[in-house]
Amino acid sequence: MIERLVIIGVGLIGGSFALALRQAGQVRHIVGVGRSSANLREALKLGVIDAVADSAGAAVGGADLVLLALPVGSMPGVLREIAPHLPEGCLITDAGSTKQDVVAAARAALDGALGRFVPGHPIAGAEHSGVTAARADLYQGRQVVLTPLAENTPAAIERVAALWRACGAEVAQMSPETHDRIFAAVSHLPHLAAFALVDDLAGRSEADTYFRYAGGGFRDFTRIAASHPEMWRDIALANREALLAELDAYIAELELIRGLLARGDAAGLEAIFQRASQVRKDWKPNPS
Amino acid sequence: MIERLVIIGVGLIGGSFALALRQAGQVRHIVGVGRSSANLREALKLGVIDAVADSAGAAVGGADLVLLALPVGSMPGVLREIAPHLPEGCLITDAGSTKQDVVAAARAALDGALGRFVPGHPIAGAEHSGVTAARADLYQGRQVVLTPLAENTPAAIERVAALWRACGAEVAQMSPETHDRIFAAVSHLPHLAAFALVDDLAGRSEADTYFRYAGGGFRDFTRIAASHPEMWRDIALANREALLAELDAYIAELELIRGLLARGDAAGLEAIFQRASQVRKDWKPNPS
Repeated sequence: MIERLVIIGVGLIGGSFALALRQAGQVRHIVGVGRSSANLREALKLGVIDAVADSAGAAVGGADLVLLALPVGSMPGVLREIAPHLPEGCLITDAGSTKQDVVAAARAALDGALGRFVPGHPIAGAEHSGVTAARADLYQGRQVVLTPLAENTPAAIERVAALWRACGAEVAQMSPETHDRIFAAVSHLPHLAAFALVDDLAGRSEADTYFRYAGGGFRDFTRIAASHPEMWRDIALANREALLAELDAYIAELELIRGLLARGDAAGLEAIFQRASQVRKDWKPNPS
Repeated sequence: MIERLVIIGVGLIGGSFALALRQAGQVRHIVGVGRSSANLREALKLGVIDAVADSAGAAVGGADLVLLALPVGSMPGVLREIAPHLPEGCLITDAGSTKQDVVAAARAALDGALGRFVPGHPIAGAEHSGVTAARADLYQGRQVVLTPLAENTPAAIERVAALWRACGAEVAQMSPETHDRIFAAVSHLPHLAAFALVDDLAGRSEADTYFRYAGGGFRDFTRIAASHPEMWRDIALANREALLAELDAYIAELELIRGLLARGDAAGLEAIFQRASQVRKDWKPNPS
Protein backbone atom coordinates (compact mmCIF):
# COMPACT_ATOMS: atom_id res chain seq x y z
CA MET A 1 0.00 0.00 0.00
CA ILE A 2 1.26 3.48 -0.88
CA GLU A 3 0.58 5.84 2.00
CA ARG A 4 1.29 9.08 0.12
CA LEU A 5 1.37 9.27 -3.66
CA VAL A 6 2.43 12.58 -5.20
CA ILE A 7 1.38 13.28 -8.77
CA ILE A 8 3.27 16.16 -10.34
CA GLY A 9 1.22 17.12 -13.39
CA VAL A 10 -2.39 15.97 -12.87
CA GLY A 11 -3.49 15.60 -16.50
CA LEU A 12 -4.70 12.66 -18.55
CA ILE A 13 -1.66 10.51 -17.71
CA GLY A 14 -1.08 11.47 -14.09
CA GLY A 15 -4.79 11.61 -13.28
CA SER A 16 -5.46 8.19 -14.81
CA PHE A 17 -2.56 6.68 -12.82
CA ALA A 18 -4.09 8.09 -9.62
CA LEU A 19 -7.58 6.81 -10.47
CA ALA A 20 -6.32 3.37 -11.47
CA LEU A 21 -4.21 2.89 -8.33
CA ARG A 22 -7.04 4.07 -6.12
CA GLN A 23 -9.46 1.69 -7.82
CA ALA A 24 -6.93 -1.12 -7.32
CA GLY A 25 -6.78 -0.32 -3.61
CA GLN A 26 -3.06 0.42 -3.80
CA VAL A 27 -2.98 3.95 -2.40
CA ARG A 28 -4.22 5.78 0.68
CA HIS A 29 -3.59 9.51 0.10
CA ILE A 30 -2.95 11.30 -3.21
CA VAL A 31 -1.45 14.77 -3.46
CA GLY A 32 -1.49 16.74 -6.71
CA VAL A 33 0.85 19.49 -7.90
CA GLY A 34 0.54 21.48 -11.12
CA ARG A 35 0.75 24.83 -12.86
CA SER A 36 -2.99 25.31 -13.32
CA SER A 37 -4.94 25.83 -10.11
CA ALA A 38 -8.20 25.47 -12.07
CA ASN A 39 -7.11 22.02 -13.24
CA LEU A 40 -6.12 21.04 -9.68
CA ARG A 41 -9.50 22.19 -8.32
CA GLU A 42 -11.16 20.08 -11.02
CA ALA A 43 -8.96 17.11 -10.01
CA LEU A 44 -10.05 17.53 -6.37
CA LYS A 45 -13.71 17.80 -7.41
CA LEU A 46 -13.44 14.64 -9.53
CA GLY A 47 -11.83 12.75 -6.65
CA VAL A 48 -8.64 12.14 -8.64
CA ILE A 49 -6.54 13.66 -5.84
CA ASP A 50 -7.21 14.19 -2.14
CA ALA A 51 -5.16 17.33 -1.63
CA VAL A 52 -3.27 20.03 -3.50
CA ALA A 53 0.26 21.06 -2.60
CA ASP A 54 1.62 24.52 -3.36
CA SER A 55 4.93 23.34 -4.73
CA ALA A 56 6.58 20.15 -5.88
CA GLY A 57 9.26 20.53 -3.23
CA ALA A 58 6.69 20.80 -0.42
CA ALA A 59 4.57 17.97 -1.83
CA VAL A 60 7.16 15.22 -1.79
CA GLY A 61 7.84 15.40 1.96
CA GLY A 62 6.54 12.13 3.43
CA ALA A 63 5.84 10.61 0.00
CA ASP A 64 6.57 6.97 -0.75
CA LEU A 65 5.95 7.36 -4.51
CA VAL A 66 6.29 10.36 -6.80
CA LEU A 67 5.07 10.31 -10.43
CA LEU A 68 6.32 13.03 -12.77
CA ALA A 69 3.69 13.39 -15.49
CA LEU A 70 4.68 16.62 -17.23
CA PRO A 71 5.94 17.73 -20.61
CA VAL A 72 9.49 16.40 -20.80
CA GLY A 73 10.87 19.93 -21.11
CA SER A 74 9.67 20.63 -17.56
CA MET A 75 11.33 17.56 -16.02
CA PRO A 76 14.81 19.01 -15.29
CA GLY A 77 13.46 21.94 -13.27
CA VAL A 78 11.04 19.77 -11.28
CA LEU A 79 13.71 17.13 -10.59
CA ARG A 80 16.01 19.85 -9.23
CA GLU A 81 13.17 21.22 -7.13
CA ILE A 82 12.20 17.93 -5.49
CA ALA A 83 15.71 16.48 -5.05
CA PRO A 84 16.49 18.09 -1.64
CA HIS A 85 13.06 17.11 -0.24
CA LEU A 86 12.79 13.43 -1.22
CA PRO A 87 12.42 11.22 1.86
CA GLU A 88 14.57 8.12 2.33
CA GLY A 89 13.02 5.17 0.53
CA CYS A 90 10.72 7.25 -1.66
CA LEU A 91 10.46 5.85 -5.18
CA ILE A 92 10.32 8.23 -8.14
CA THR A 93 9.08 7.41 -11.62
CA ASP A 94 7.96 9.40 -14.64
CA ALA A 95 5.67 9.14 -17.65
CA GLY A 96 7.77 11.11 -20.11
CA SER A 97 7.48 10.25 -23.80
CA THR A 98 11.26 10.41 -24.23
CA LYS A 99 13.74 8.72 -21.95
CA GLN A 100 17.36 9.65 -22.64
CA ASP A 101 16.74 13.29 -21.79
CA VAL A 102 14.78 12.48 -18.63
CA VAL A 103 17.48 10.05 -17.49
CA ALA A 104 20.13 12.72 -18.09
CA ALA A 105 18.10 15.25 -16.08
CA ALA A 106 17.67 12.74 -13.24
CA ARG A 107 21.40 11.98 -13.20
CA ALA A 108 22.13 15.69 -12.97
CA ALA A 109 19.61 16.39 -10.21
CA LEU A 110 19.03 13.40 -7.98
CA ASP A 111 22.41 12.46 -6.48
CA GLY A 112 21.81 9.86 -3.77
CA ALA A 113 18.19 9.32 -4.78
CA LEU A 114 19.11 8.29 -8.35
CA GLY A 115 18.85 4.58 -7.61
CA ARG A 116 15.22 5.09 -6.59
CA PHE A 117 14.27 6.79 -9.88
CA VAL A 118 12.82 4.22 -12.29
CA PRO A 119 12.11 5.91 -15.66
CA GLY A 120 8.93 4.87 -17.48
CA HIS A 121 6.64 5.62 -20.40
CA PRO A 122 3.01 4.48 -20.55
CA ILE A 123 1.92 4.06 -24.19
CA ALA A 124 -1.41 5.72 -23.75
CA GLY A 125 -1.26 9.15 -25.26
CA ALA A 126 -4.42 10.73 -26.53
CA GLU A 127 -5.28 13.96 -28.25
CA HIS A 128 -7.28 14.97 -25.20
CA SER A 129 -5.41 16.47 -22.28
CA GLY A 130 -6.24 17.69 -18.80
CA VAL A 131 -7.63 15.88 -15.80
CA THR A 132 -11.19 15.79 -17.17
CA ALA A 133 -9.95 13.23 -19.73
CA ALA A 134 -8.49 10.97 -17.01
CA ARG A 135 -10.05 7.55 -16.41
CA ALA A 136 -9.31 4.58 -14.18
CA ASP A 137 -9.19 2.17 -17.12
CA LEU A 138 -6.86 4.17 -19.38
CA TYR A 139 -4.00 1.70 -18.86
CA GLN A 140 -6.06 -1.46 -19.16
CA GLY A 141 -4.23 -3.69 -21.64
CA ARG A 142 -1.82 -0.88 -22.56
CA GLN A 143 1.94 -1.20 -22.60
CA VAL A 144 4.24 0.59 -20.20
CA VAL A 145 7.93 0.69 -21.06
CA LEU A 146 10.39 1.00 -18.20
CA THR A 147 14.00 1.97 -18.97
CA PRO A 148 15.77 1.11 -15.70
CA LEU A 149 19.09 2.57 -14.67
CA ALA A 150 22.16 0.57 -13.66
CA GLU A 151 21.71 2.22 -10.25
CA ASN A 152 18.19 0.81 -9.73
CA THR A 153 17.78 -2.15 -7.42
CA PRO A 154 15.71 -5.05 -8.75
CA ALA A 155 13.25 -4.35 -5.91
CA ALA A 156 12.72 -0.74 -7.02
CA ILE A 157 12.14 -1.78 -10.64
CA GLU A 158 9.75 -4.52 -9.59
CA ARG A 159 7.80 -2.21 -7.29
CA VAL A 160 7.18 0.33 -10.08
CA ALA A 161 6.36 -2.46 -12.56
CA ALA A 162 3.88 -3.98 -10.09
CA LEU A 163 2.07 -0.65 -9.69
CA TRP A 164 1.65 -0.29 -13.46
CA ARG A 165 0.41 -3.88 -13.62
CA ALA A 166 -2.09 -2.97 -10.88
CA CYS A 167 -3.34 -0.28 -13.29
CA GLY A 168 -3.97 -3.04 -15.85
CA ALA A 169 -0.87 -2.43 -17.99
CA GLU A 170 1.68 -4.82 -19.44
CA VAL A 171 5.23 -3.84 -18.56
CA ALA A 172 8.24 -4.12 -20.88
CA GLN A 173 11.86 -3.11 -20.27
CA MET A 174 14.43 -1.71 -22.67
CA SER A 175 17.30 0.78 -22.70
CA PRO A 176 16.52 4.51 -22.95
CA GLU A 177 18.33 4.57 -26.32
CA THR A 178 16.23 1.75 -27.78
CA HIS A 179 13.08 3.36 -26.41
CA ASP A 180 13.81 6.71 -28.01
CA ARG A 181 14.73 5.16 -31.37
CA ILE A 182 11.54 3.08 -31.51
CA PHE A 183 9.21 5.88 -30.43
CA ALA A 184 10.81 8.38 -32.79
CA ALA A 185 9.57 6.10 -35.58
CA VAL A 186 6.17 4.93 -34.39
CA SER A 187 4.99 7.95 -32.42
CA HIS A 188 7.03 11.14 -32.72
CA LEU A 189 7.39 11.11 -36.52
CA PRO A 190 3.65 10.43 -37.13
CA HIS A 191 2.78 13.34 -34.86
CA LEU A 192 5.08 15.68 -36.79
CA ALA A 193 3.72 14.36 -40.09
CA ALA A 194 0.14 15.02 -38.98
CA PHE A 195 0.96 18.51 -37.68
CA ALA A 196 2.73 19.18 -41.01
CA LEU A 197 -0.27 18.23 -43.15
CA VAL A 198 -2.77 20.30 -41.18
CA ASP A 199 -0.42 23.29 -40.99
CA ASP A 200 0.23 23.09 -44.74
CA LEU A 201 -3.52 23.24 -45.49
CA ALA A 202 -4.29 25.77 -42.76
CA GLY A 203 -1.92 28.25 -44.37
CA ARG A 204 -3.74 28.30 -47.72
CA SER A 205 -6.16 31.02 -48.77
CA GLU A 206 -8.80 28.40 -49.59
CA ALA A 207 -8.26 26.38 -46.40
CA ASP A 208 -11.98 26.28 -45.59
CA THR A 209 -12.79 24.66 -48.93
CA TYR A 210 -10.17 21.97 -48.41
CA PHE A 211 -11.40 21.13 -44.91
CA ARG A 212 -15.04 21.07 -46.07
CA TYR A 213 -14.38 18.14 -48.38
CA ALA A 214 -11.99 16.23 -46.15
CA GLY A 215 -13.36 12.79 -45.29
CA GLY A 216 -12.75 9.90 -42.95
CA GLY A 217 -9.22 9.17 -44.14
CA PHE A 218 -8.14 12.73 -43.44
CA ARG A 219 -9.95 12.69 -40.10
CA ASP A 220 -8.02 9.66 -38.83
CA PHE A 221 -4.68 10.61 -40.41
CA THR A 222 -4.81 14.02 -38.71
CA ARG A 223 -6.38 13.05 -35.37
CA ILE A 224 -3.03 13.37 -33.58
CA ALA A 225 -2.52 16.85 -35.07
CA ALA A 226 -4.91 18.01 -32.32
CA SER A 227 -2.30 16.97 -29.73
CA HIS A 228 -0.84 19.31 -27.15
CA PRO A 229 1.58 21.73 -28.91
CA GLU A 230 3.86 22.39 -25.95
CA MET A 231 4.12 18.71 -25.04
CA TRP A 232 5.07 17.81 -28.61
CA ARG A 233 7.53 20.68 -28.93
CA ASP A 234 9.29 19.26 -25.87
CA ILE A 235 9.21 15.68 -27.17
CA ALA A 236 10.58 16.71 -30.57
CA LEU A 237 13.46 18.65 -29.01
CA ALA A 238 14.17 15.98 -26.38
CA ASN A 239 14.44 13.27 -29.01
CA ARG A 240 15.99 15.46 -31.67
CA GLU A 241 18.69 13.16 -33.04
CA ALA A 242 16.48 10.09 -33.46
CA LEU A 243 13.63 12.19 -34.81
CA LEU A 244 15.84 13.94 -37.38
CA ALA A 245 16.91 10.51 -38.61
CA GLU A 246 13.27 9.44 -38.88
CA LEU A 247 12.30 12.65 -40.68
CA ASP A 248 15.12 12.04 -43.16
CA ALA A 249 13.99 8.46 -43.75
CA TYR A 250 10.39 9.55 -44.19
CA ILE A 251 11.24 12.39 -46.58
CA ALA A 252 13.41 9.94 -48.56
CA GLU A 253 10.48 7.52 -48.82
CA LEU A 254 8.18 10.34 -49.96
CA GLU A 255 10.80 11.38 -52.54
CA LEU A 256 10.99 7.78 -53.75
CA ILE A 257 7.21 7.72 -54.23
CA ARG A 258 7.37 11.16 -55.86
CA GLY A 259 9.90 9.86 -58.36
CA LEU A 260 7.82 6.80 -59.22
CA LEU A 261 4.77 9.00 -59.69
CA ALA A 262 6.62 11.56 -61.82
CA ARG A 263 7.89 8.74 -64.09
CA GLY A 264 4.44 7.11 -64.21
CA ASP A 265 5.91 3.89 -62.77
CA ALA A 266 2.65 2.04 -62.05
CA ALA A 267 4.32 -1.21 -60.97
CA GLY A 268 6.69 0.59 -58.63
CA LEU A 269 3.87 2.50 -56.94
CA GLU A 270 1.72 -0.60 -56.65
CA ALA A 271 4.57 -2.58 -55.07
CA ILE A 272 4.95 0.02 -52.29
CA PHE A 273 1.22 0.35 -51.72
CA GLN A 274 0.87 -3.45 -51.76
CA ARG A 275 3.52 -4.04 -49.11
CA ALA A 276 2.20 -1.25 -46.90
CA SER A 277 -1.39 -2.42 -47.26
CA GLN A 278 -0.54 -6.03 -46.43
CA VAL A 279 1.60 -5.13 -43.44
CA ARG A 280 -0.99 -2.71 -42.10
CA LYS A 281 -3.80 -5.26 -42.51
CA ASP A 282 -1.77 -7.96 -40.77
CA TRP A 283 -0.80 -5.71 -37.87
CA LYS A 284 -2.75 -6.21 -34.66
CA PRO A 285 -2.97 -2.81 -32.99
CA ASN A 286 -2.60 -2.63 -29.24
CA PRO A 287 -5.89 -1.95 -27.45
CA SER A 288 -6.94 1.63 -26.87
CA MET B 1 -38.26 4.46 -60.51
CA ILE B 2 -35.23 2.88 -62.18
CA GLU B 3 -36.31 -0.28 -63.99
CA ARG B 4 -32.82 -1.64 -64.64
CA LEU B 5 -29.76 -0.44 -62.74
CA VAL B 6 -26.39 -1.77 -63.88
CA ILE B 7 -23.52 -1.66 -61.36
CA ILE B 8 -20.14 -2.18 -62.98
CA GLY B 9 -17.84 -3.04 -60.09
CA VAL B 10 -19.90 -4.41 -57.19
CA GLY B 11 -17.63 -3.50 -54.26
CA LEU B 12 -18.10 -1.28 -51.23
CA ILE B 13 -19.09 1.75 -53.29
CA GLY B 14 -21.18 0.12 -56.02
CA GLY B 15 -22.76 -2.37 -53.64
CA SER B 16 -23.72 0.32 -51.13
CA PHE B 17 -25.29 2.43 -53.92
CA ALA B 18 -27.39 -0.60 -54.94
CA LEU B 19 -28.45 -1.34 -51.35
CA ALA B 20 -29.30 2.30 -50.61
CA LEU B 21 -31.40 2.78 -53.77
CA ARG B 22 -33.21 -0.47 -53.17
CA GLN B 23 -33.96 0.50 -49.58
CA ALA B 24 -35.24 3.87 -50.83
CA GLY B 25 -37.59 2.07 -53.21
CA GLN B 26 -35.97 3.71 -56.23
CA VAL B 27 -34.99 0.64 -58.26
CA ARG B 28 -36.69 -2.50 -59.57
CA HIS B 29 -33.92 -4.73 -61.02
CA ILE B 30 -30.18 -4.56 -60.33
CA VAL B 31 -27.58 -6.22 -62.56
CA GLY B 32 -23.97 -6.59 -61.45
CA VAL B 33 -20.81 -6.89 -63.54
CA GLY B 34 -17.29 -7.47 -62.29
CA ARG B 35 -13.99 -9.24 -62.63
CA SER B 36 -14.40 -11.56 -59.66
CA SER B 37 -17.14 -14.17 -60.04
CA ALA B 38 -16.75 -15.09 -56.36
CA ASN B 39 -17.51 -11.48 -55.40
CA LEU B 40 -20.53 -11.40 -57.74
CA ARG B 41 -21.87 -14.65 -56.25
CA GLU B 42 -21.49 -13.09 -52.82
CA ALA B 43 -23.33 -9.97 -54.04
CA LEU B 44 -26.20 -12.17 -55.28
CA LYS B 45 -26.30 -14.09 -52.00
CA LEU B 46 -26.37 -10.84 -50.00
CA GLY B 47 -29.23 -9.51 -52.14
CA VAL B 48 -27.13 -6.56 -53.32
CA ILE B 49 -27.81 -7.46 -56.96
CA ASP B 50 -30.57 -9.52 -58.62
CA ALA B 51 -28.57 -10.86 -61.55
CA VAL B 52 -25.05 -11.17 -62.91
CA ALA B 53 -24.15 -10.23 -66.47
CA ASP B 54 -21.21 -11.80 -68.29
CA SER B 55 -19.88 -8.56 -69.71
CA ALA B 56 -20.36 -4.84 -69.27
CA GLY B 57 -21.43 -4.52 -72.91
CA ALA B 58 -24.18 -7.14 -72.53
CA ALA B 59 -25.29 -5.74 -69.17
CA VAL B 60 -26.17 -2.21 -70.24
CA GLY B 61 -28.77 -3.26 -72.84
CA GLY B 62 -32.14 -2.07 -71.51
CA ALA B 63 -30.55 -0.14 -68.60
CA ASP B 64 -31.83 3.24 -67.53
CA LEU B 65 -28.89 3.90 -65.18
CA VAL B 66 -25.32 2.63 -65.23
CA LEU B 67 -22.90 3.23 -62.33
CA LEU B 68 -19.20 2.71 -62.94
CA ALA B 69 -17.64 1.89 -59.58
CA LEU B 70 -14.19 0.63 -60.52
CA PRO B 71 -10.59 1.69 -60.05
CA VAL B 72 -10.21 4.77 -62.26
CA GLY B 73 -7.57 3.03 -64.37
CA SER B 74 -10.24 0.59 -65.57
CA MET B 75 -12.70 3.30 -66.62
CA PRO B 76 -11.43 3.95 -70.20
CA GLY B 77 -11.71 0.29 -71.23
CA VAL B 78 -15.16 -0.15 -69.70
CA LEU B 79 -16.44 3.10 -71.21
CA ARG B 80 -15.29 1.92 -74.66
CA GLU B 81 -16.91 -1.46 -74.07
CA ILE B 82 -20.33 -0.12 -73.07
CA ALA B 83 -20.50 2.81 -75.51
CA PRO B 84 -22.00 0.89 -78.48
CA HIS B 85 -24.61 -0.81 -76.29
CA LEU B 86 -26.02 2.11 -74.29
CA PRO B 87 -29.76 2.50 -74.89
CA GLU B 88 -31.29 5.88 -75.74
CA GLY B 89 -32.01 7.82 -72.59
CA CYS B 90 -29.79 5.71 -70.35
CA LEU B 91 -27.95 7.83 -67.77
CA ILE B 92 -24.36 6.96 -66.89
CA THR B 93 -22.49 8.08 -63.80
CA ASP B 94 -19.36 7.00 -61.97
CA ALA B 95 -17.85 6.94 -58.51
CA GLY B 96 -14.24 7.52 -59.49
CA SER B 97 -11.97 9.24 -56.98
CA THR B 98 -10.47 11.43 -59.71
CA LYS B 99 -12.49 13.32 -62.27
CA GLN B 100 -10.39 14.94 -65.02
CA ASP B 101 -9.15 11.57 -66.25
CA VAL B 102 -12.60 9.95 -66.15
CA VAL B 103 -14.08 12.92 -68.01
CA ALA B 104 -11.35 12.64 -70.65
CA ALA B 105 -12.03 8.91 -71.02
CA ALA B 106 -15.77 9.56 -71.34
CA ARG B 107 -15.17 12.24 -74.00
CA ALA B 108 -13.02 9.79 -75.95
CA ALA B 109 -15.47 6.88 -75.73
CA LEU B 110 -19.05 8.02 -75.45
CA ASP B 111 -19.79 10.14 -78.56
CA GLY B 112 -23.54 10.78 -78.66
CA ALA B 113 -24.10 9.49 -75.13
CA LEU B 114 -21.67 11.99 -73.57
CA GLY B 115 -24.46 14.37 -72.52
CA ARG B 116 -25.94 11.58 -70.43
CA PHE B 117 -22.71 10.90 -68.52
CA VAL B 118 -22.73 12.82 -65.23
CA PRO B 119 -19.40 12.32 -63.43
CA GLY B 120 -19.48 11.92 -59.67
CA HIS B 121 -17.46 11.06 -56.58
CA PRO B 122 -19.02 9.90 -53.33
CA ILE B 123 -16.77 10.86 -50.37
CA ALA B 124 -17.12 7.56 -48.60
CA GLY B 125 -13.94 5.61 -49.07
CA ALA B 126 -12.97 3.07 -46.50
CA GLU B 127 -10.04 0.77 -46.01
CA HIS B 128 -12.38 -2.19 -46.45
CA SER B 129 -13.25 -3.25 -49.95
CA GLY B 130 -15.44 -5.84 -51.61
CA VAL B 131 -19.19 -6.30 -51.54
CA THR B 132 -19.20 -7.80 -48.03
CA ALA B 133 -18.35 -4.30 -46.73
CA ALA B 134 -21.32 -2.70 -48.56
CA ARG B 135 -24.16 -1.24 -46.50
CA ALA B 136 -27.37 0.63 -47.27
CA ASP B 137 -26.45 3.51 -44.97
CA LEU B 138 -22.90 4.11 -46.23
CA TYR B 139 -23.88 7.41 -47.88
CA GLN B 140 -26.07 8.70 -45.04
CA GLY B 141 -24.92 12.26 -44.35
CA ARG B 142 -21.91 11.86 -46.68
CA GLN B 143 -20.99 14.24 -49.44
CA VAL B 144 -21.16 13.37 -53.13
CA VAL B 145 -19.40 15.71 -55.54
CA LEU B 146 -20.74 15.89 -59.10
CA THR B 147 -18.54 17.47 -61.77
CA PRO B 148 -21.06 18.00 -64.60
CA LEU B 149 -20.07 18.44 -68.24
CA ALA B 150 -21.11 21.35 -70.45
CA GLU B 151 -22.93 18.70 -72.50
CA ASN B 152 -25.12 17.54 -69.57
CA THR B 153 -28.71 18.74 -69.50
CA PRO B 154 -29.94 20.19 -66.20
CA ALA B 155 -32.42 17.28 -66.07
CA ALA B 156 -29.66 14.65 -66.29
CA ILE B 157 -27.63 16.35 -63.55
CA GLU B 158 -30.68 16.69 -61.33
CA ARG B 159 -31.68 13.05 -61.86
CA VAL B 160 -28.26 11.76 -60.75
CA ALA B 161 -28.19 14.24 -57.85
CA ALA B 162 -31.67 13.10 -56.74
CA LEU B 163 -30.58 9.45 -56.68
CA TRP B 164 -27.58 10.26 -54.45
CA ARG B 165 -29.86 12.27 -52.18
CA ALA B 166 -32.17 9.23 -52.05
CA CYS B 167 -29.13 7.34 -50.72
CA GLY B 168 -28.91 9.91 -47.92
CA ALA B 169 -26.04 11.97 -49.35
CA GLU B 170 -25.56 15.71 -49.71
CA VAL B 171 -24.68 16.69 -53.27
CA ALA B 172 -22.20 19.42 -54.24
CA GLN B 173 -21.06 20.50 -57.70
CA MET B 174 -17.68 21.75 -58.88
CA SER B 175 -15.42 21.53 -61.92
CA PRO B 176 -13.31 18.39 -62.45
CA GLU B 177 -10.18 20.54 -62.05
CA THR B 178 -11.26 21.94 -58.69
CA HIS B 179 -12.28 18.48 -57.55
CA ASP B 180 -8.93 16.96 -58.39
CA ARG B 181 -6.98 19.80 -56.78
CA ILE B 182 -8.96 19.58 -53.52
CA PHE B 183 -8.86 15.79 -53.26
CA ALA B 184 -5.16 15.63 -54.07
CA ALA B 185 -4.66 17.60 -50.85
CA VAL B 186 -7.22 16.13 -48.47
CA SER B 187 -7.35 12.51 -49.65
CA HIS B 188 -4.71 11.41 -52.14
CA LEU B 189 -1.71 12.91 -50.36
CA PRO B 190 -2.70 11.53 -46.91
CA HIS B 191 -3.02 8.07 -48.47
CA LEU B 192 0.46 8.29 -49.99
CA ALA B 193 1.84 9.65 -46.73
CA ALA B 194 0.35 6.72 -44.78
CA PHE B 195 1.57 4.13 -47.30
CA ALA B 196 5.01 5.77 -47.10
CA LEU B 197 5.28 5.51 -43.33
CA VAL B 198 4.22 1.87 -43.17
CA ASP B 199 6.45 0.91 -46.09
CA ASP B 200 9.41 2.71 -44.51
CA LEU B 201 9.00 0.72 -41.27
CA ALA B 202 8.11 -2.55 -43.00
CA GLY B 203 11.45 -2.50 -44.82
CA ARG B 204 13.53 -2.43 -41.64
CA SER B 205 15.19 -5.49 -40.15
CA GLU B 206 13.58 -4.77 -36.76
CA ALA B 207 10.13 -4.04 -38.22
CA ASP B 208 8.38 -6.35 -35.75
CA THR B 209 9.80 -4.47 -32.77
CA TYR B 210 8.61 -1.14 -34.15
CA PHE B 211 5.10 -2.41 -34.80
CA ARG B 212 4.92 -4.05 -31.35
CA TYR B 213 5.21 -0.68 -29.61
CA ALA B 214 3.09 1.34 -32.00
CA GLY B 215 0.08 2.82 -30.24
CA GLY B 216 -3.20 4.55 -30.97
CA GLY B 217 -1.70 7.52 -32.81
CA PHE B 218 0.11 5.23 -35.23
CA ARG B 219 -3.01 3.10 -35.62
CA ASP B 220 -5.16 6.01 -36.75
CA PHE B 221 -2.45 7.75 -38.79
CA THR B 222 -1.86 4.56 -40.79
CA ARG B 223 -5.43 3.25 -41.04
CA ILE B 224 -5.66 4.30 -44.70
CA ALA B 225 -2.39 2.50 -45.47
CA ALA B 226 -4.54 -0.67 -45.49
CA SER B 227 -6.37 0.70 -48.55
CA HIS B 228 -6.62 -1.10 -51.87
CA PRO B 229 -3.18 -0.92 -53.59
CA GLU B 230 -4.44 -1.11 -57.18
CA MET B 231 -7.14 1.47 -56.62
CA TRP B 232 -4.64 3.90 -55.12
CA ARG B 233 -2.05 3.25 -57.82
CA ASP B 234 -4.71 4.29 -60.33
CA ILE B 235 -5.78 7.35 -58.35
CA ALA B 236 -2.19 8.53 -57.94
CA LEU B 237 -1.45 8.19 -61.64
CA ALA B 238 -4.78 9.68 -62.71
CA ASN B 239 -4.25 12.77 -60.56
CA ARG B 240 -0.50 12.92 -61.07
CA GLU B 241 0.02 16.65 -61.63
CA ALA B 242 -2.06 17.83 -58.67
CA LEU B 243 -0.62 15.10 -56.46
CA LEU B 244 3.00 15.93 -57.37
CA ALA B 245 2.28 19.54 -56.38
CA GLU B 246 0.86 18.34 -53.05
CA LEU B 247 3.79 16.00 -52.44
CA ASP B 248 6.15 18.92 -53.05
CA ALA B 249 4.23 21.16 -50.65
CA TYR B 250 4.18 18.42 -48.00
CA ILE B 251 7.88 17.61 -48.35
CA ALA B 252 8.63 21.35 -48.12
CA GLU B 253 6.60 21.59 -44.89
CA LEU B 254 8.44 18.56 -43.46
CA GLU B 255 11.77 20.14 -44.45
CA LEU B 256 10.69 23.35 -42.73
CA ILE B 257 9.95 21.41 -39.53
CA ARG B 258 13.21 19.49 -39.93
CA GLY B 259 15.13 22.77 -40.12
CA LEU B 260 13.44 24.14 -36.99
CA LEU B 261 14.20 20.92 -35.13
CA ALA B 262 17.82 20.80 -36.29
CA ARG B 263 18.33 24.39 -35.10
CA GLY B 264 16.51 23.69 -31.82
CA ASP B 265 13.99 26.44 -32.60
CA ALA B 266 11.44 25.72 -29.87
CA ALA B 267 9.23 28.74 -30.61
CA GLY B 268 9.13 27.95 -34.33
CA LEU B 269 8.11 24.33 -33.70
CA GLU B 270 5.51 25.32 -31.14
CA ALA B 271 3.97 27.89 -33.53
CA ILE B 272 3.42 25.22 -36.21
CA PHE B 273 2.11 22.63 -33.74
CA GLN B 274 -0.12 25.29 -32.15
CA ARG B 275 -1.74 26.35 -35.43
CA ALA B 276 -2.25 22.75 -36.55
CA SER B 277 -3.65 21.69 -33.19
CA GLN B 278 -6.10 24.61 -33.04
CA VAL B 279 -7.29 24.14 -36.63
CA ARG B 280 -7.69 20.39 -36.18
CA LYS B 281 -9.62 20.83 -32.93
CA ASP B 282 -11.92 23.42 -34.50
CA TRP B 283 -12.60 21.29 -37.59
CA LYS B 284 -15.91 19.47 -37.64
CA PRO B 285 -15.31 16.21 -39.52
CA ASN B 286 -17.99 15.01 -41.88
CA PRO B 287 -19.93 12.03 -40.53
CA SER B 288 -18.63 8.56 -41.23
